[in-house]
Amino acid sequence: MFSQTTEYALRAMACLAMRPNDLVPTPVLAAQTKVPANYLAKVLQHLAGAKLIKGRRGVGGGYKLARPASEIRLLEVINAVTVVSRIESCPLGLSSHGSNLCALHKKADEAAAAVIKVYGGVSLHDLLTDANPNKPLCEVRAGATLTVSANHKR
Amino acid sequence: MFSQTTEYALRAMACLAMRPNDLVPTPVLAAQTKVPANYLAKVLQHLAGAKLIKGRRGVGGGYKLARPASEIRLLEVINAVTVVSRIESCPLGLSSHGSNLCALHKKADEAAAAVIKVYGGVSLHDLLTDANPNKPLCEVRAGATLTVSANHKR
Repeated sequence: MFSQTTEYALRAMACLAMRPNDLVPTPVLAAQTKVPANYLAKVLQHLAGAKLIKGRRGVGGGYKLARPASEIRLLEVINAVTVVSRIESCPLGLSSHGSNLCALHKKADEAAAAVIKVYGGVSLHDLLTDANPNKPLCEVRAGATLTVSANHKR
Repeated sequence: MFSQTTEYALRAMACLAMRPNDLVPTPVLAAQTKVPANYLAKVLQHLAGAKLIKGRRGVGGGYKLARPASEIRLLEVINAVTVVSRIESCPLGLSSHGSNLCALHKKADEAAAAVIKVYGGVSLHDLLTDANPNKPLCEVRAGATLTVSANHKR
């Protein structure tokens, strides 16, 4: 439904939320999120532009969340790379419609409202503390504790 | 939320639903939907490929719906140009997740389900027979009957 970019932004933010105290290098993020590094670099620029992450270049550099995971809702992440908003007036600019939307745009507004409700109600922290033992981006080894799916040192 | 292409596909289909007996030329559709003609031509190819519309080239040519408006749900239109589907297994292919989605992908699935519910429950015919006097793509003149917003003859 959403673009690949949106899915990738959510993965990157979930990944950073798991390591709140580290500057995570882009290649490490790329491996763990299974996103091509060049593509991910552009996604990270959007997230930094939206002040959701902050970074440092060079040796030992990388990205970390700009705020605690509990204060970042998934909707903010999505809105850093696309726009999910209610439809407040006719997208065609028809003057007789104005804010009294036709049935087509009323449905589009309903869909937007539903998506905003789903993603606006959950923070990155909520994702990580969900009761499901399957955590975002992490393999679960049988009989073992959680391990991330990608090599962190390279 | 959705791409411009999706919005344009919905507009084009709503426009064709209003004139079920006519082959509507692309320039006429472009004017009424307020979509650039070249862009619209590509959208129409997708809709034709999905067998939602059928057309004829040349003088007197154009497009019409391939089925009655009552039998075409908005969700089909959207799926002709993008993919809105439930998430049935881990998009990262994590073997320990499988169909037991993590909280991130469970939310994405919830959002998809909500959008499918909104757009799967309404046909093109429903749009045109909605009680709202503001009809898709049409200006309403004060004290007059409905008129379309663009010149149909050019």
